[in-house]
Parts: sequence; structure tokens; C-alpha cells
Amino acid sequence: MHIKIINPNTNAIFTQRNLLLGRAVASAGTVISAAEPRLGTASVECHIEEAIASIGVVEEVLAGERDGVDGYVTACFGDTGIHAAREAATGPVVGMTEASLFAAALIAAKFSIVTLPSRTRIQAERVVRELGMQERCWPVRAIDVDVLDCEDEDAAIAQAFLVEARRAIADDHAEAIILGCAGLSPLVTPLTAALGMPVIEGVSVAVKMAEGLVSLELRTSKVSSYANPPPKPRSSAFFHGAFGDLAS
Amino acid sequence: MHIKIINPNTNAIFTQRNLLLGRAVASAGTVISAAEPRLGTASVECHIEEAIASIGVVEEVLAGERDGVDGYVTACFGDTGIHAAREAATGPVVGMTEASLFAAALIAAKFSIVTLPSRTRIQAERVVRELGMQERCWPVRAIDVDVLDCEDEDAAIAQAFLVEARRAIADDHAEAIILGCAGLSPLVTPLTAALGMPVIEGVSVAVKMAEGLVSLELRTSKVSSYANPPPKPRSSAFFHGAFGDLAS
Amino acid sequence: MHIKIINPNTNAIFTQRNLLLGRAVASAGTVISAAEPRLGTASVECHIEEAIASIGVVEEVLAGERDGVDGYVTACFGDTGIHAAREAATGPVVGMTEASLFAAALIAAKFSIVTLPSRTRIQAERVVRELGMQERCWPVRAIDVDVLDCEDEDAAIAQAFLVEARRAIADDHAEAIILGCAGLSPLVTPLTAALGMPVIEGVSVAVKMAEGLVSLELRTSKVSSYANPPPKPRSSAFFHGAFGDLAS
Amino acid sequence: MHIKIINPNTNAIFTQRNLLLGRAVASAGTVISAAEPRLGTASVECHIEEAIASIGVVEEVLAGERDGVDGYVTACFGDTGIHAAREAATGPVVGMTEASLFAAALIAAKFSIVTLPSRTRIQAERVVRELGMQERCWPVRAIDVDVLDCEDEDAAIAQAFLVEARRAIADDHAEAIILGCAGLSPLVTPLTAALGMPVIEGVSVAVKMAEGLVSLELRTSKVSSYANPPPKPRSSAFFHGAFGDLAS
Amino acid sequence: MHIKIINPNTNAIFTQRNLLLGRAVASAGTVISAAEPRLGTASVECHIEEAIASIGVVEEVLAGERDGVDGYVTACFGDTGIHAAREAATGPVVGMTEASLFAAALIAAKFSIVTLPSRTRIQAERVVRELGMQERCWPVRAIDVDVLDCEDEDAAIAQAFLVEARRAIADDHAEAIILGCAGLSPLVTPLTAALGMPVIEGVSVAVKMAEGLVSLELRTSKVSSYANPPPKPRSSAFFHGAFGDLAS
Amino acid sequence: MHIKIINPNTNAIFTQRNLLLGRAVASAGTVISAAEPRLGTASVECHIEEAIASIGVVEEVLAGERDGVDGYVTACFGDTGIHAAREAATGPVVGMTEASLFAAALIAAKFSIVTLPSRTRIQAERVVRELGMQERCWPVRAIDVDVLDCEDEDAAIAQAFLVEARRAIADDHAEAIILGCAGLSPLVTPLTAALGMPVIEGVSVAVKMAEGLVSLELRTSKVSSYANPPPKPRSSAFFHGAFGDLAS
Repeated sequence: MHIKIINPNTNAIFTQRNLLLGRAVASAGTVISAAEPRLGTASVECHIEEAIASIGVVEEVLAGERDGVDGYVTACFGDTGIHAAREAATGPVVGMTEASLFAAALIAAKFSIVTLPSRTRIQAERVVRELGMQERCWPVRAIDVDVLDCEDEDAAIAQAFLVEARRAIADDHAEAIILGCAGLSPLVTPLTAALGMPVIEGVSVAVKMAEGLVSLELRTSKVSSYANPPPKPRSSAFFHGAFGDLAS
Repeated sequence: MHIKIINPNTNAIFTQRNLLLGRAVASAGTVISAAEPRLGTASVECHIEEAIASIGVVEEVLAGERDGVDGYVTACFGDTGIHAAREAATGPVVGMTEASLFAAALIAAKFSIVTLPSRTRIQAERVVRELGMQERCWPVRAIDVDVLDCEDEDAAIAQAFLVEARRAIADDHAEAIILGCAGLSPLVTPLTAALGMPVIEGVSVAVKMAEGLVSLELRTSKVSSYANPPPKPRSSAFFHGAFGDLAS
Repeated sequence: MHIKIINPNTNAIFTQRNLLLGRAVASAGTVISAAEPRLGTASVECHIEEAIASIGVVEEVLAGERDGVDGYVTACFGDTGIHAAREAATGPVVGMTEASLFAAALIAAKFSIVTLPSRTRIQAERVVRELGMQERCWPVRAIDVDVLDCEDEDAAIAQAFLVEARRAIADDHAEAIILGCAGLSPLVTPLTAALGMPVIEGVSVAVKMAEGLVSLELRTSKVSSYANPPPKPRSSAFFHGAFGDLAS
Repeated sequence: MHIKIINPNTNAIFTQRNLLLGRAVASAGTVISAAEPRLGTASVECHIEEAIASIGVVEEVLAGERDGVDGYVTACFGDTGIHAAREAATGPVVGMTEASLFAAALIAAKFSIVTLPSRTRIQAERVVRELGMQERCWPVRAIDVDVLDCEDEDAAIAQAFLVEARRAIADDHAEAIILGCAGLSPLVTPLTAALGMPVIEGVSVAVKMAEGLVSLELRTSKVSSYANPPPKPRSSAFFHGAFGDLAS
Repeated sequence: MHIKIINPNTNAIFTQRNLLLGRAVASAGTVISAAEPRLGTASVECHIEEAIASIGVVEEVLAGERDGVDGYVTACFGDTGIHAAREAATGPVVGMTEASLFAAALIAAKFSIVTLPSRTRIQAERVVRELGMQERCWPVRAIDVDVLDCEDEDAAIAQAFLVEARRAIADDHAEAIILGCAGLSPLVTPLTAALGMPVIEGVSVAVKMAEGLVSLELRTSKVSSYANPPPKPRSSAFFHGAFGDLAS
Repeated sequence: MHIKIINPNTNAIFTQRNLLLGRAVASAGTVISAAEPRLGTASVECHIEEAIASIGVVEEVLAGERDGVDGYVTACFGDTGIHAAREAATGPVVGMTEASLFAAALIAAKFSIVTLPSRTRIQAERVVRELGMQERCWPVRAIDVDVLDCEDEDAAIAQAFLVEARRAIADDHAEAIILGCAGLSPLVTPLTAALGMPVIEGVSVAVKMAEGLVSLELRTSKVSSYANPPPKPRSSAFFHGAFGDLAS
């Protein structure tokens, strides 16, 4: 089985972290690959960057289809481009946000997302609402750190998460914490110890869920909402005619 | 006042229709322009085409900003790229779907969308949910005609809308009908007459709402969710460094 | 085009303010009139006053119908009597609350109402719920000033709004503020400057939305929920037999 | 204990029916009275008639307060004027719609309202939504009979209810039926027998709930939302200065 | 009429309190009995204890059916086993939680539950959600006292309730308070006086609602969701073959 | 890793099927065991049977804890006893209903449950609501076959599922089908082929999700809602004093 982890941003450091994490959690026999878009944005922190990154996510699914990939994980909080990715994919596509929310719902009655930076709360909230989890996971909390500063994983970031998680526990009665950004797996063990409750990292959960779906031969439904795009005039600047485009 | 109508698809026929419609409904003193993206897709009927079209919508907002545009209308049902467009715009951005839902809510207790083709129901439902209108506008109805076939505005399409609208009236107690696609303004008068209830075309409503917001100096809030993207490494293939991108 | 602004309370000072505001924002060619009920209550701050004011609102719509009014605005937060008004009106009826919520939704991801006095929160919440905006505009905030004290527009009221708006920004992540009372248009400019985000005054927005609907010939649907009342025995103390009442 | 049943319409036949029904179901020691407004509308079938009837409901509560009434029942589906009535009342005020929904929720997992005529669905739906019962009681069903035709209680009406109730059972999985109009208590026994499930008449349930609240000394909260109106200039045409009105 | 109050826990002190309370509030002619399960748990404060107590609740309904009981009240916050009890009962079954929420909704616009201990918030929230009351009664508040410590009704508990109720008033705008545990009726009078708003004790309300339903011959619907269990192999360790069990 | 599949009913045939299915889908290195309660009910089709089965589910978790089980799957649609099971378990507990809903949400925009028999719709709906999936999975559909008749897996049952699934596709726009009962894995392949969309069997999905959680060391949060029951007097008839019970 081949699972591809798509990093929606162009930061190869995150891709590499996801690859190592994916390989660490994968079952024996699962091939994990990881890639970032050739063109895009160094992090995904707003709607315009989501628009940019969605193109890259679909490109990487299309590359994956050519490579015989069985299932995909998208590794960006907010699950940028997930619905478009499903239209391009044969196998399942699992977003790290939805995966972490589902995992949380299986092990805790209430839970909180701590994301970053503040302005991305709106993206995390979108996923929470789409999945109907508002009464178990609200409000979305944030720390004011830029995604790119997470490259350093330093103590200050760990501390900021700890402070905000404790607010979630005190004020929102959180019983588990979801890390609202990719690349933070080093925080799981220390935060779990410090908080005394599950701390959930979405990429690792998404890899396991994708493996599970693939092993059961559960693939993206191609009936209507996630069917491939129909052939029509479309610019070859996007996806190089992958969907049977006509000359435009 | 300058209002720009952005056609998210590349079909110049739709752009031209929107331009004529916008000019027909604009107030004296309002300059209406219209444009479609240079690169994109001939119609927007799925998530991948929404991803493509979102890029074009943002491009056209950026062009509008350079041209001193005061407000924008996006003319594609589903309001493709609307949140990203707001991050790029100084003035208000009004989607035809949200505009038609707001207009419907002001003149009817219950109402139905008739969109096309079937697979785009999911996009219309997304907007209905985001706006909290599920109890007044559900289910979304669809006819199985491709958007591009609407170029012809022929009697068969009018008849298909009439049949589905009558189902909405009988089964869902609709008291107004929203046309779920741009370019259908010629249907408004005959359908209104045949159904005996308001028939709402979203582009025209959006133009009036954008005019109203601009005249009151109500612009897109730049506080957090719709602030401009922060400077960071981003590929110049997208938006040519419009947001203070660093070399990536 | 003739737009009538109905002040649901009997306070002529508010009527005059609404008239001036309406004329200031109306398009060239729009005639703005304004009126308050002959009998009623000096302000609308509870359910009983809403019951009283609803009678007056309908009376004024009926007078407007005789005068050939094309569209109506009701100028009281809570949109007192709006559904009844629609049954009496041929053209559209736009409430200042719904108009301000729709405007806010077009330019901000989240927003807060600051209303007055405290006990009227329940009325504002009713509108927020009816429009399905709870996840973008909650909780409703209030300052403890009586409506009639707003006649004076003094610095103390401006300051109270500023303090509460800042709480909404800090605690609820508001990105725009809705003024929850008619007659407060003088606050818009200073509060916008002080808060650095859009401040929305509902009467002005409602006038623009009513103009827009009228210009598009979108009138209140008369199919079922907003049809005229059927003829039957009704006391002529109410509406003087306007709906074809039989002797009771 | 004195419970007053307020008939919001002016039809004395309904008042008399409610009185007899109330006396039939009241506990020993409960005094039941009933009244209709002096001025008003012969039936309540739309928003304008609700506005008219709300005035009458408050008038009758005020008369009840002078008479030492302990609790009130409002006997019109849609619970016209219920919130205003609570502001005027010391004791509890129970609407027939909310009472029947609460009773249904205690004895059935799902249930349906059958109301009349069709256009009043919107009023019943308002109550269902306010009480958060949409997932157990939806859609509201209606037969096309005018309220005043129910005076005759003839076989045709019984038959229409039976037909619509059977649709609710087949299509909506109803396990109990709520009669959506006052004055229909003669239908309870035959419909219960024919349908083999509980059939709920709201006035009788409301009388028992009001008795229960009064016996437990549970009165309307006067803290904020249901406090008496504050003194201020209000026309004596409404309520004769009952709330400490100042000269207007 | 015979109403049986079922105490879901095995603490006879609570049973006795419920019996005295029930008799104090019952109408003339109503026979009140009370019982606790022979086997079970001394208090119900978590899901496992709810599972245990549900068995006891059904046992006691079955005993009640043999005794000709007309209606049941379950006297444990969270309404443990209420749906199962309805399958066993002929007459109505009223939970103290749902009864107190319905009573609160009849006399207050917003209200708060103060329950105990903290971990039972999840059970109270389940009922609030099932009844669709989230927008009027949220969040559920708790004091950290064990149910069994309530046997003593001492001043410290009264004080803890007072403090938390005042938080609910200040922060959540509560206009009535629901006592979130059985056995607390002595707190009603002093808390009502101290808070100046209704304080609702659920067992007493449930008794009155059960009396009301029984007097109107409204019994549990036996159509589908609450029909008796079908005969099939089931262990006689549960309910002694009460439902026509086959040998397993 | 040791995953235990708990069959909540006493039917050993189902236990055996679940065991074989679990072993067929488990990863290399996972030990799968399966058990049914010693005492209980032959199938779980109503609330009383859920009460019975909940005891058995907790018993089996306790036995699993003694055996060093790492994670649990409960194999009964409706996820009987899942919250209680979590209080007893150290590792994760995954219900087949929630697992199938999460899997469906990852591969399809809309989906339908087909359960059996009709009266169990209410149990499936409870889970759909708890997980906030009402807008993607509604209504729950049912065929009128008893669970025990599924032992035979005959063609008639397959045909009944096919007919109802086709209704879900036509009327509810389902894009995937969830089998609403354990023991139906033989239907997956033929139904998938016949319907041309994913058909989801919950036990197999739950096994994979439990494996994933265990491999990531994600265990049930023990903070509050799912903490072990506190020590107190409880009858040893339940769980033999497993939770540090005091003599009662």
C-alpha cells in the first residue's frame, strides 16, 4: 500500500517532517511518500493562501494517481483543498483536521483545537462546522505564532501551547487537545505529560485512517459530488489537461 | 462609483451578459465593468473548477484594486473564491449566491434554489449552510443541464426550471425561487409570470447590494479573517508578488 | 421611487433623524418619507411595546400603500412587526436589524451587535436566530442606556458603545460592530475611527437594500406566508377594515 | 387557584368551548374562567391577525391581574402574544402550542403537528424552532380548512385530519399527533382510536401545566426579558396606562 | 390516580425525600409511591452508574405495571434510563430533568442548570441537547460536591449553589435556576429569595406533569420507538422474562 | 496489539462472524479476540435491550482490562453502552456506528444508513445527532427485518438492502451506503457492485480505527467525563466491585 502525504505549502522542511512522521507510524508494508507543490506558498494562513495551496494539492494528487498511490493525507490544518483533492483521487483522501477531530471524538467527550496564528481560527472553525462538532469543540483557540516559526519547535512555542491548552481545560472543559498545525509532533509527548490528557497530532492520525480505508478498499465515492471534473475547455496552465480538457 | 463584476469562468459570453445586466440595473453614476480570468475553466461545476476559478477571481480583484474599483460582484453560483477575494479587496465583495439568499429572505418566508447541473448542489448547499438558511431554503434543487448549455437560453431550459420550481412549490412550500446560475436573467420575467412569485437573479441583486455598501463607505473588514495575506515566500506564478511576497 | 421609513415608536425626534439619514444616503431620484404611528409607545424596549408598535407599523404600511410607496424600511432594532408589515405591503419591507446583519455578513467573518438597554438583547437574539447567524454573531451585547436617552447622543453614550465594542473584539473576535438601535448614525464615523473596523448603522443599510429590491422589481411574495389577511370579521378599531373585513 | 383561558380571537364560541374543556380537565379546587378580547379578529391565521390578537391577549392578562388570576393559558395555535403576555403577568402563562409540544415530547419520540389553514404553518414552525424541536417534529403539516369552519366540527374536518395524520405517520414516522388549532377537543377520542397513538389537544394540556406551575408557586421570572414594561410615554389607547405610562 | 416516583439510585434517604416531596405537591386524590432499585448504585454520577441505574429504573417500572401505576417520575438528574422506562410503561414517564427544563421554558427566557458534581455536566448537557434547549440553557454549570454529600443539605451546599447561580446570572444572563440534582427541595425557598428569580426543582415539577398527562389519558405512544420489546431469547437475569422472553 | 471486539448481544454466531471479520482485516501483529456477554439479549433492537446490553458491554471491557486488551470495538449498530465502556477502558473504544459515519464522511459528501428493523431508526439517529452529521446523513432508512433473521444472510435481505439503498440514492442523494447492523459483511461486495458506490461495514472500519489509535498511543481521556467511576456503595451484582465499590 502506498500512502502519499501532501504538504500543501512549499516548505520542504515540513514535507520532510511529515515523511519521517508518516514512516514512523505506518504499518509494516505501507510505503509512505511525501511531497510539496512545486509552486505555492511557504505556509497556509489565510484564504488566499488556501486558494494557492489548493492548486498544489490537486497537482500532487494527480502526480500520485500517475504513481499508483492508494491513499492521500493532506498535512495542513484547515484541510485546504480537500474536496477538490477528492475529485482528483481514486483512493481516499484524509485531511489532518478531520482526522484529528474524529480521533478526538473517539476518546474524549469534549476537546479543543489550539491553532496558529490567530487569523487561521476561521479556517479551523470551518472544518469544525462542516463536521458538526461545534458542541464538542468550541471555541477554536489560537496562539499568535506564525506557522513558519514552528520550524524551530523551540521551547517558547511549546510553552505557548501549554498556556492556551490550560485555558481550554479551565474555560471550555476540554478533555483532549488537538494541535492545530502540521509539524508539531515533537510537542505530543511533553504536552501529554504536562496536561495529563490526550494530545492529538493530525498527520499521524490521518495516515492511520488512510491506511485503514485503503486496506478495506474504501475509496472516494465517484457518484456525484466527488466525481472527476467533466471534460470542457480549461486552461492547460492548470493540471495540464488532466481531466480530458478540450482546447479552450 | 466603480463596481466590477467578476465572472469566475473564462467564458466571455457570460462576462458580456453580466456586463449588460449590471449596466441595466446600476444606478446613475455607477460605472460597471466586467471581466473574466485570462486562464481558467469555461464553467465552474465542481470543487476542482472552484479551485481554478478562485485563482482567477483573486487575480481580477487585484486588477480591480489597481484600477480603483470600489466594490466587486462575483458572478458564479456557489460564490467561488469569495473569502479569498475579500482578503485582496479594499471595498466590499458580494457573491451572487449570498446576495440572492439575502434578497429572498427579505421578501419571502421560504424559498428554493434551482441550480444546475446536479453535482453543483453541494456547492450551493455550502453557501446555504454558511449563511444559516437551512430551515428556509432546503433542499437545494437542480436540473440536469450543463452550465455551458445555458448559453443558448432556449425554451427547453426555461421549461426545466419551470418544472423544478413547481416541485419546490408543491413539496417544499417555496414562496420565491432563486436561479442557481449566472447568465439566466432572461428567465426572470417569464418565470415570475408563470409561477406568480418572485424569481431572483443573483448578479443583479449583488450589484445593488455592492452599490449600497460602497455608497455607505462600508468596506471589507481588514481586522483578522479578511486582512491581506502577510508577506512571506510565495511563488510569483500566483498573483505576481502582489502581497509583498519574498523571493521563495 | 418612493421609500418610506417607518419609525415604530412615537418619538418624532427619531422619525426626523431617520428622515434626514434616509435622504442623505438615498440615490438620486429616490423620494424618502418617514413617519411614526399616531398612537403608540415612545420607545420599543420589550415584548409589550413590540405588540403596540406592530400595530403602528402596519398602520403606516397601510398609509404607505395608499400613498403609492414602493418599499419600506422599519427603523427599530428587533425588526418589530416586520412579518405583519410584509402581509400589508406590496413592495419589499426591510428591517434595520436584518439589513445590518446581512451587510455585516458581506464584509466581515464575525461581528457583534451592541444594543440597548440590556433587556432588549432577547429581541436582537430573536432576529439573529431567525436569520441563522448565531455562529457569526453571538452573544448579543448591550449597554444599559434607555433608548430615549439616545436622543441626546452625548459623549457618554459614545463611550459606552466604545467600551462594549472593545469587549466584543477581545472576547468574541468581532471584526465589525452593528449599532443595535436606530438614531445612532452620528456614532458611525467616530466609532469606525476608534475601532479600526466597520461600524454598521441599520437604517441606512436598509434604505439601500430597499432601493435595490425596488429597482429590481422584487416585491414581497404574496403566495402564502405573506399574503394579505383574508376577509373575515375583525374589529374596525384595527386598520379600519383595510383587509376587506366583514362586520364583526 | 384561578386559571384564566384567554382566547386570542373574538369568537365567543371558541371561548365557550375552551371554558367547558378547561373545567372538564381542571383539578378540584381550580376555578377556570375564559374570555376573548372585546376588540380583535374572529380568528388568527396570519401575522397581522397575530399583531391584533397580541393586544387582546395582553388586555386580558391585565384584566386577569386585576381579578387575581394565578395563571393563564393562551388558546390559539402559534401562541400569539405569549412573550408580551408574560411581561404583563405575575403568574405563569402557558401557550397551547408549547404545552402540546412538551406533552408530545414526554410520550413520543417523534410527533407531528397538523394545523390549519396552510398559511399558518409558518406560525407553528416558529414555535417549533423557538423550542428547538425541529428534529422531532418536522415538517409541520396542514389541512386547508379555515379556522372558523372548525366551529362546525363536522365529519369532513375529522376526515381531513385523519388523512393528513396518516401521511405524517407514513412519511415522517410520527408516533403522536398534535391538533394544531384550538376548539378541536371533540376530535381527540375518535382520532386516537383511529390512529392507535396519542392525539394531543393543547388547551387541555396547557391548563394542566399552568395548574402545576401555580401549585408549585412557579411564576414568570421578572428579572429582565419578562419584566413589566418600564414607565414612559405611551398612548392610553393601549392598555390604559397599565404600566405606569406617562402622558405622551 | 397512582404516580410512582422512581429513585434510580439505591439510597433510601433520597427515596424517602422524594416520597415526602411528591406527597406534598400531589393533587387531592393522587396516590404517590416511591421506590429505589433493590440492586444498584448509591448515586448516579457517570455513564457506568447510568447503565446500572437504567436496569433498576426498568425493574421499578415493571413492578409499577404490576401494581397498576398510572404514571411515573424518574428522580435523577440526567433522566437515566428514561427511554427504556417508556418501553416498559403503559402510562407516561416524566424525567426530572426534562420536566424542569420545560417548566423553565414556560416562565423564563433564559435559564441555567447548576448540577453536581462536575463530571455529570455531560449527562445534563445530553438532555439539554436532546430537547433542543442549547440556546436558552448553556453552558451547564456545576459545583464540585458529590451527590451523596447532599444528604446533609447543609449550609455549605446552599452557599455553593448560590455562588454558582450568581455566576450564571452575571455571565449567562440566567433568569431562572434549575437545581441539577434530586433531593434539593429544601434549597428552593431560600435560593428563590436570595436570587429574586424562580428556582426550579425537577421532581416536584415532574410529579405535576405526570399528573396532568395521566388525567388527560395521555399515555406513552406504543407505535414504534417506545413499543414493548419484542419476544426473543433474553437472559432471565434481566427483568425475569417480563417481555415474553424465550428461553435463551 | 490486542483488539477485542465486543458483541453486545448474546448471539454467539454474531460473535464468531465479528471475530472472523476482525481477523480478516487486522494488520499483521494485531491479535483479535471477540466475546459476547454471558447474560443478555439475543439482539439489541430497543432501548430496554440497550440497557441490558450496556451492562454486558461494560462487563466485557472489564474482562478485557484484566486480559491486557489495548483497544475495543463494540459491534452493534447504535453503539450501545459506548460511553459507559469508555469509563471502564484504558485504551480507546470505537463503536461500529461512529466508525462507519466517520469513514463515510471521509469518502463521500452525503451518505445514508440503512438499518433494521424500523424501530431501531431512533437509535441510529441518536448517534447521527451526537456526531453532528444530520445534514449529511438524513433521514436514517430502515428495512423491516429482525436482526436475528440476518443470521441467514439470504438473498431476500440483500435484496431489501438494495431496494432501500436505491431509494436513498434517488431521494436523499446518497453517495455512499452504511450497513446499519453488525454481521452483514457478506453484503459489502455485492452491494458495492450493484450500487456503484462505497458500501461501509462498521465493524471492519472500527477495527482499523482502533488499531490506529492504539498504535499512536491515543487512549481514552480520563480527565472527567470518561474517568473511572468513583468508589461508593454499589451492588456487587454489577461488575463485582470492579470500581473499588464499598459494601452497600
